[in-house]
Amino acid sequence: MTVHFPEDAASDPGAAEDAATWRPLAEAARELVDLCVMSDVDAEEVRAAQADIEAAVARLRKVRRAQTMGMEYLAAGRRRPWGNPVIGLRNPIAPPLVVHSDPSGRVESDFHCGAAYEGPPGLVHGGMVALILDQILGHAVGAAGRPGMTGTLTLVYRRGTPLGDLRAEAWVDREDGVKTWAKARMIGPQGVTCEAEGVFILPRAVRERLGLPDGN
Amino acid sequence: MTVHFPEDAASDPGAAEDAATWRPLAEAARELVDLCVMSDVDAEEVRAAQADIEAAVARLRKVRRAQTMGMEYLAAGRRRPWGNPVIGLRNPIAPPLVVHSDPSGRVESDFHCGAAYEGPPGLVHGGMVALILDQILGHAVGAAGRPGMTGTLTLVYRRGTPLGDLRAEAWVDREDGVKTWAKARMIGPQGVTCEAEGVFILPRAVRERLGLPDGN
Repeated sequence: MTVHFPEDAASDPGAAEDAATWRPLAEAARELVDLCVMSDVDAEEVRAAQADIEAAVARLRKVRRAQTMGMEYLAAGRRRPWGNPVIGLRNPIAPPLVVHSDPSGRVESDFHCGAAYEGPPGLVHGGMVALILDQILGHAVGAAGRPGMTGTLTLVYRRGTPLGDLRAEAWVDREDGVKTWAKARMIGPQGVTCEAEGVFILPRAVRERLGLPDGN
Repeated sequence: MTVHFPEDAASDPGAAEDAATWRPLAEAARELVDLCVMSDVDAEEVRAAQADIEAAVARLRKVRRAQTMGMEYLAAGRRRPWGNPVIGLRNPIAPPLVVHSDPSGRVESDFHCGAAYEGPPGLVHGGMVALILDQILGHAVGAAGRPGMTGTLTLVYRRGTPLGDLRAEAWVDREDGVKTWAKARMIGPQGVTCEAEGVFILPRAVRERLGLPDGN
């Protein structure tokens, strides 16, 4: 669910049916991704599993999109962020995060990072922390009506982020012309593990709607 | 290949055989991840593919590691970064990057990011750019004999990073006591898309070996 685009569900009538088809596929693939790093079966079993995956691949590649999901849905004038590597219900790379926002523009998400997200032993990869915080910073500026692409992203790592259940929070800190500053943090069982700040630049279409001048 | 730990291959007999077993599994799973976002087959075919994946999952979960790969190999006194989400040969989340270093400590990698890494339409997710640059910054400080955990990471996005063939480069900029500053950049067909700087803190064991005092 991307709560900063609430208008999409209404304008996308087949979405619920499509989600019911593709979500369980991605969920099975997420289990597979986890087992690729966590399984300890013998070589014969690995080869048999590989053959099963190749059968699935042969089925799915019978019809391939001409464009990525992002390009295709953008062209159709609507947006299904189902391919997104953090929140995408169709993307097995995504944990996926379900992001909630409140009317003030604060966003939050509780999620789980398993073994496939490991960097240092037992800890979430620092770059994965960056990926997740970048995503929810984007939700915060979107929720505040100031969507944009990341211009600058700064992360301060306070301690390792343990694998397991985690929480991410973000909010808009301030805005000035076409720039919006948002802050985020990752929270583990022992408290805040990483603090982030992002500077987002309003895209031209939004600048024009808000009557803001061009430039930085 | 993690060239900043060249001693591992020699001390890890069986690695080549294990890699020959698990690498093709992960490669098949990477194709599957891509198709989860790029396939456009009908619902019946999706359900059949899901059943194939569930068969693979049932095989692989027959024996599950008690610990993550990072924890297990750390305990065994050797390191196989095969679970790493950027370079891990067993991790379907990883493109994976193959990172090369030269004797001066410069590191570089040419790799491919497909549809599963998409953020804005047609572009690599900015957080994915951060994940990849964080990883190769770590290789740079490791290659220079100053390994460490990321303390601070700053990314400046110059333009969107198009999906497709990309290059990442990193090098050590300077060092002072327990801190090492490294820089990295992402390069697409039109040039540099993102510049990064990371500050890495030497772990205690390395400080003691180098005779450096504690603290920052």
